[in-house]
Amino acid sequence: MNKRADLTPMMKPRSVAIIGASRDPHKVGNVILQNYISAGFPGKLYPVNLNSDEVLGLKAYKSVLDIDDSVDLAVIAIPAPAVPGALEQCGKAKVKSAVVVSGGFAEIGETGLQDKIAGIAKKYSIALVGPNCLGVMDMRSKVDTLFLPTKKLSKPKVGFVSFVSQSGAVGSTVLDVIAGEGIGLSKFISYGNAAYIDETDILEYLMGDPETKVIVLYIEGIKRGREFVELARKLGRSKPVIVLKAGRTSAGMAAAQSHTASLAGNYAVQEAIFKQFGFIVANDLSELLYYAKIFASEMRPKGNRVGVITNGGGAGVIAADEIGSSKYLQMADYSAATKKSLRKIMPALVNIKNPLDLAGDADSRRYMDAMNALGSDPEVDMLLVIILYQTPGADPGVTREVVQKKITLSKPLLVVSVGTEYTQRQAKLLEEGGVPVYDSPISAVSSLEALFKYTEFKKRIATG
Amino acid sequence: MNKRADLTPMMKPRSVAIIGASRDPHKVGNVILQNYISAGFPGKLYPVNLNSDEVLGLKAYKSVLDIDDSVDLAVIAIPAPAVPGALEQCGKAKVKSAVVVSGGFAEIGETGLQDKIAGIAKKYSIALVGPNCLGVMDMRSKVDTLFLPTKKLSKPKVGFVSFVSQSGAVGSTVLDVIAGEGIGLSKFISYGNAAYIDETDILEYLMGDPETKVIVLYIEGIKRGREFVELARKLGRSKPVIVLKAGRTSAGMAAAQSHTASLAGNYAVQEAIFKQFGFIVANDLSELLYYAKIFASEMRPKGNRVGVITNGGGAGVIAADEIGSSKYLQMADYSAATKKSLRKIMPALVNIKNPLDLAGDADSRRYMDAMNALGSDPEVDMLLVIILYQTPGADPGVTREVVQKKITLSKPLLVVSVGTEYTQRQAKLLEEGGVPVYDSPISAVSSLEALFKYTEFKKRIATG
Repeated sequence: MNKRADLTPMMKPRSVAIIGASRDPHKVGNVILQNYISAGFPGKLYPVNLNSDEVLGLKAYKSVLDIDDSVDLAVIAIPAPAVPGALEQCGKAKVKSAVVVSGGFAEIGETGLQDKIAGIAKKYSIALVGPNCLGVMDMRSKVDTLFLPTKKLSKPKVGFVSFVSQSGAVGSTVLDVIAGEGIGLSKFISYGNAAYIDETDILEYLMGDPETKVIVLYIEGIKRGREFVELARKLGRSKPVIVLKAGRTSAGMAAAQSHTASLAGNYAVQEAIFKQFGFIVANDLSELLYYAKIFASEMRPKGNRVGVITNGGGAGVIAADEIGSSKYLQMADYSAATKKSLRKIMPALVNIKNPLDLAGDADSRRYMDAMNALGSDPEVDMLLVIILYQTPGADPGVTREVVQKKITLSKPLLVVSVGTEYTQRQAKLLEEGGVPVYDSPISAVSSLEALFKYTEFKKRIATG
Repeated sequence: MNKRADLTPMMKPRSVAIIGASRDPHKVGNVILQNYISAGFPGKLYPVNLNSDEVLGLKAYKSVLDIDDSVDLAVIAIPAPAVPGALEQCGKAKVKSAVVVSGGFAEIGETGLQDKIAGIAKKYSIALVGPNCLGVMDMRSKVDTLFLPTKKLSKPKVGFVSFVSQSGAVGSTVLDVIAGEGIGLSKFISYGNAAYIDETDILEYLMGDPETKVIVLYIEGIKRGREFVELARKLGRSKPVIVLKAGRTSAGMAAAQSHTASLAGNYAVQEAIFKQFGFIVANDLSELLYYAKIFASEMRPKGNRVGVITNGGGAGVIAADEIGSSKYLQMADYSAATKKSLRKIMPALVNIKNPLDLAGDADSRRYMDAMNALGSDPEVDMLLVIILYQTPGADPGVTREVVQKKITLSKPLLVVSVGTEYTQRQAKLLEEGGVPVYDSPISAVSSLEALFKYTEFKKRIATG
């Protein structure tokens, strides 16, 4: 690995200095230190503050140079003009990595100041992330440089999805939703203006990270095109990468320029490259999350034939339409044995077709029978299970059956469920049980399609 | 109006007979009667039950013929083979309208039985809705023939959106979500197999209904093509109609056939007709709801220039991309006066551009200033306000400012907000304040686009 792409000192630090750690609870430096303490970070914490000897009960230092320990990570949260001086001190103190959360650099035209800190990072080989970023989070090491009010964000569970976001606010929003959707997180890296460490470095690090099985990427610009393409070729073969590239249109490019000072580049070319290397391309935040959810489940289909189970005929028709419109998926045709066994166990009102409409009075037993039949049918590769909990028969028993089935089933299975309180409680139970839940047939089908396309890509590269 | 399309006796009945009203709380007839009683239906209720003299505290009758009153509406919830007999009695008793909720007709191949009840309805001029449907709901008259467990559905508030659904389960799901999204409902009609009264009749009734300002339509088939087209031409000029036609592909058509015995027809032709008459076409349940929400707000834009306000740069870039990709919308270019006044009131970190990125520390004051400036700028036709509540400054104060601004603003304004508990509480407050909230830039932009296209359509028919 390219040495500067080794983010181990940042993600797994034994010691962290917080430069700008403040006693004032409204200051970013206070929030960050408090977050480390609350999270139970097991390493050493060194607040650096010019004016206080103690912050939040910890001894404070005037400079990193005063710390009598080697520092793996410095989190820098001070006004932009003071950053170069502090970073220079980090260099002299042999600090290995730094996250500059402060804004006030290239995004407001201060490119000179930004070049200056990039130069210092290079001179001292400091793995520098930022400026103008939220920083990093590692769910296992409990590193967390985010300066966000915890009551406003749900905390994700520990898992294997790593999320890289150029934008801090998009990052925090997606983190919140990832938590709400029950997706397990490994690492979060918000890298802002990318003065030194950029998307290519971060992706190279995550490619080699055994704690990362799926990468979710939000970018506005690509700094080093040639290096990015070289890495992307290898990365696509190694792990699923879900990418949302903002700045696709001239309106978006202008906005990206003033947001993270990114030159967005030609999106048609970028998209072609992403697709060639097997990246899963999202066009919106919602798509990014849909895809993240299904890839996080680590399900992989054997083929493209979808069996649809529903307790609402209309929702089944909409799902069939979506599958019918897909260039990649098709409606499964059940085997003769499945048809026969379904005809035997299902009430006369149920037509033995795909979608299998279990009718509005379908209960847990009927869902179980249907999932068992399609689950063991070799003509069915994936199961799309629609549960409209507003109907009389759909109750927590159905939820339990689906979660049970998911444990033993070797095929991808997801649920479509739409509604308010009652439905949302059941959806949460399903997701806690590892079943991805979608709020519309269209998002479910497009997620299954992405999964199938990626599986095909992997097959293609495996065979030559 | 075509006489059979007069659904007044059904929607505003003075007296309702419930045929199949049962003492058994698991029976549909019991649930329906109970719902009428719980809802405080102000008219007369007549349970009809062969075996009991009393149901739920009300005197029960052996037949509608025994009721010593004129009956406006009969709700029929008995096994399919018994329906023709009961309906014949309704005819003799001069019952004006009937809702047959029972299934077991054309959807399982029993076309003879279905033709029979259609014939009886015609013979006696009974406005018959169904069979195989959920029936009807009128939020003002408190008519409610739905047999759904109330704890599983939120109840919509009273409003001006009427929702017509061929499918019962889609109907109940959309009703639940309509309630959750704070959309005000006027009438709900689930008409199932459409043995007699069909979508054309219902739309004709709603076209003349002053309590209906927006029509949301879920259909699987169109029964009388020529009459539908004739009506659609007039209807499109009179009210916004949002339509989701399922059975667009051959897979969907096959599914529709076994669901409501609908012949789905050629979708390309249907879609062209819908668009020609100004209908707003949705491709999925989620789109149907997005559009319903923005049209329910009764906002109409003067032009296509969107001003974007955000506290998350990345989300602003995504919104700019969506607007940039739209064939109809464009990013507004603020007037010189707006730019000047914004530069004066905004902090130096804020670039005076569109999107207007207020930065992660934006508070209610900054949002208020931004909305005031763009709200009064003649170069801005619509406001898309992104609030990422995960950021430090976004709090209930921002929510209050947006709700306040909405009251006085003459331009369409909607909010994009994504997140879990904290965000969802704020979103609910916004929607209660009449501000439509979207969970992604893509859905918000496509809703603004639908609104703009409809406004253009109205202008076009007014001038030519």
